[in-house]
Amino acid sequence: MTNISIITIGDELLIGQVIDTNSAWMALELNKSGFWVHRRVAVGDGREEIWKAMDEESGHSDIILITGGLGPTADDITKPVLCEYFKTRLIVNEEALENVKNIFNKILHRPLIERNLKQAEVPASCVVIQNKRGTAPGMLFEKNGKSFISMPGVPHEMRGMMTDNVIPYLKNKFGGNYISHRTLLTAGVGESSLADHIRDFEDTLPSEIKLAYLPNYGMVRLRLTANAEREAGLESKLDKLFVDLKSRVGEWLVTDSDITLQEAIGKLLFSRNQTMSTAESCTGGYVAQLITSIPGSSSYFHGSVVAYDNSVKVKILDVNPEILSCHGAVSEETVRAMVSGAIKVMGTDYAVATSGIMGPGGGSENKPVGTVWIAAGNAQEIITQKLWFRFDRQRNIELTGSNVLNLLRRFILSQTPKNPSAVLQ
Amino acid sequence: MTNISIITIGDELLIGQVIDTNSAWMALELNKSGFWVHRRVAVGDGREEIWKAMDEESGHSDIILITGGLGPTADDITKPVLCEYFKTRLIVNEEALENVKNIFNKILHRPLIERNLKQAEVPASCVVIQNKRGTAPGMLFEKNGKSFISMPGVPHEMRGMMTDNVIPYLKNKFGGNYISHRTLLTAGVGESSLADHIRDFEDTLPSEIKLAYLPNYGMVRLRLTANAEREAGLESKLDKLFVDLKSRVGEWLVTDSDITLQEAIGKLLFSRNQTMSTAESCTGGYVAQLITSIPGSSSYFHGSVVAYDNSVKVKILDVNPEILSCHGAVSEETVRAMVSGAIKVMGTDYAVATSGIMGPGGGSENKPVGTVWIAAGNAQEIITQKLWFRFDRQRNIELTGSNVLNLLRRFILSQTPKNPSAVLQ
Repeated sequence: MTNISIITIGDELLIGQVIDTNSAWMALELNKSGFWVHRRVAVGDGREEIWKAMDEESGHSDIILITGGLGPTADDITKPVLCEYFKTRLIVNEEALENVKNIFNKILHRPLIERNLKQAEVPASCVVIQNKRGTAPGMLFEKNGKSFISMPGVPHEMRGMMTDNVIPYLKNKFGGNYISHRTLLTAGVGESSLADHIRDFEDTLPSEIKLAYLPNYGMVRLRLTANAEREAGLESKLDKLFVDLKSRVGEWLVTDSDITLQEAIGKLLFSRNQTMSTAESCTGGYVAQLITSIPGSSSYFHGSVVAYDNSVKVKILDVNPEILSCHGAVSEETVRAMVSGAIKVMGTDYAVATSGIMGPGGGSENKPVGTVWIAAGNAQEIITQKLWFRFDRQRNIELTGSNVLNLLRRFILSQTPKNPSAVLQ
Repeated sequence: MTNISIITIGDELLIGQVIDTNSAWMALELNKSGFWVHRRVAVGDGREEIWKAMDEESGHSDIILITGGLGPTADDITKPVLCEYFKTRLIVNEEALENVKNIFNKILHRPLIERNLKQAEVPASCVVIQNKRGTAPGMLFEKNGKSFISMPGVPHEMRGMMTDNVIPYLKNKFGGNYISHRTLLTAGVGESSLADHIRDFEDTLPSEIKLAYLPNYGMVRLRLTANAEREAGLESKLDKLFVDLKSRVGEWLVTDSDITLQEAIGKLLFSRNQTMSTAESCTGGYVAQLITSIPGSSSYFHGSVVAYDNSVKVKILDVNPEILSCHGAVSEETVRAMVSGAIKVMGTDYAVATSGIMGPGGGSENKPVGTVWIAAGNAQEIITQKLWFRFDRQRNIELTGSNVLNLLRRFILSQTPKNPSAVLQ
């Protein structure tokens, strides 16, 4: 099986100012094409570190994908190190030079300075991968049967290069093992209880199929992965096992495809031709942002009122000030009123509401930090839930978001669709 | 100098279903305490992979921090591998057992099953680090003068253990080099032009002080780092260089501390005792979410109207329907009206507005995907800007967010504060 190592270069990764999202994206895409990322290594912008990483990873893997350190500034030294490592020298690549000039003159409308022109220089022995989205070209080297591919660290530039050039090249050259996944999302059950519940199932899996538990935001994703040299009936084996797994998961099942909760809700609303809105206090727009991150969400999402200040709850969402003074902003009565207000003012079929104390400040004895009320409903009926978290602010916001979306999903499913045939899609 | 390697364990990291945020957080915290993360390695849940990574990293570094693979399910094999690696066996740790029982009985209110009890088993030769936030204890091993510390991969559990136990232990045992940073944030200038502009400065830096460029969301963070065995006057050298750097950066300077743009705006509003709100179309709540991610933001942020559907723009933000029909939702006139509406309906000193086509669909010849109008202002004056991006949906949303916040920051600074003395804080 063809193994891949990913080396990401940059001091910013080692002092923690930047989170490495590139590797995850690369792994996901490579996996889909039947390649296995064996190791991921991050090293700093230093000659020794880069050299050693290339040496070691070429011992571990057949393909070494390198990102980062190709910028025009002095701390970006990947290109000179590649030159030295592959015993070659820098030459100007005419096509890359045209590209740099074009980007500065026609797109950025910025003066082109000498260090930008240097972006068009590449090691003489490499195959150049042109960059359609930026100035730094990619570079492909072969050495002792191993492929080294260096790409820029800017996410959308790297992504474009991977999709257009690198993955097609790798598929053509290395083929790759047969890998296939079946993924489902559960909510409302812990990782251990779930594992115990499906222990029989797990114990009888054939050797070429593995089960993984991927907990995230209070939900657990279950993934079956088949990994073998050839298909040889794996797809039908996977299908059969997946049906079995779904029936065992039962009511905890959120969706049986590898999508997020917000995508599942989007599909549900779209199929029923219905709409939703959000009324958010403690989540501060996080729920709206989750929903609108899905392309096409404008067809079922009307909008949100982020009512951080109580005056906004009263004025826009029409929450009765007496509810706020009697029960407080963090109360069942308030989130109920927020749902009703959102449905009315934004004219949607459904709405959700959140109100809670996210911390670190703002708690009291009766309502400690982490106390949250959520609600979901339509014009006829509203369901609510009280949550209590004991995490940090960011995680409390995220968990409130996934809980309220799951509450909404359950509520929608409890309602008879206007047009039942549409749901069968 | 004491080097650290971080090993993160888990197949989910290698197939890209999870983004590794742990390593970045760990690096940031270790750095502050004078430790240098030399390498970060991610490997899968396999005996060979984990074993090799521990062997190799103990060749690279003095301290090996390991996260992940300590869950109660069958794919978590770190603990048996540690046992084998350090030639020991599993025993029950009484304190960890009490902790597991306590969490299940008093916090989770879930039945305690056998595989949870196994969480209290630890290798006999390790020093146990109790987990106050979860069931899996941490484990410390010493071998040939190297320290190996294994922690759970659940972010808040790992973070608590690092802060309470691991960093104090490392400080006490290894001391660490003297590391100090000065960081500033710029906007409105590209990495190359900035580098060219401050080339003289960079060329004359002493060997123990480095300058790094950290571009993100259309802004560039500049970081000066001193790294030496002892302080020996480094702080005053850094201070002097930082003053010089700030004056060279000039009007591009957003803030001279290592904070985000939304934190800088929060401080500005807080010091002037003023408030803001947002009216968001294309950013879908992203800007509100950025602002409310800052603890204490409720003192200056009233709320947001996410007006995804035009009916919400008209009904809540009082945008004249004629503006929408004449100029379209993505227009200067619309974002101006949205700012005015937000200020009026949410009663704030300032508001920002966004409207654009984020893609992949929705573009036209006149208004292609990536066309965005943003606005910021108060009741008297509104400034606007047209943007054009050529990236993916998520990046377009993020860039719109940072641009509109920077527009607001510049607008606030252009206004004379009501109480000038307060600004000097």
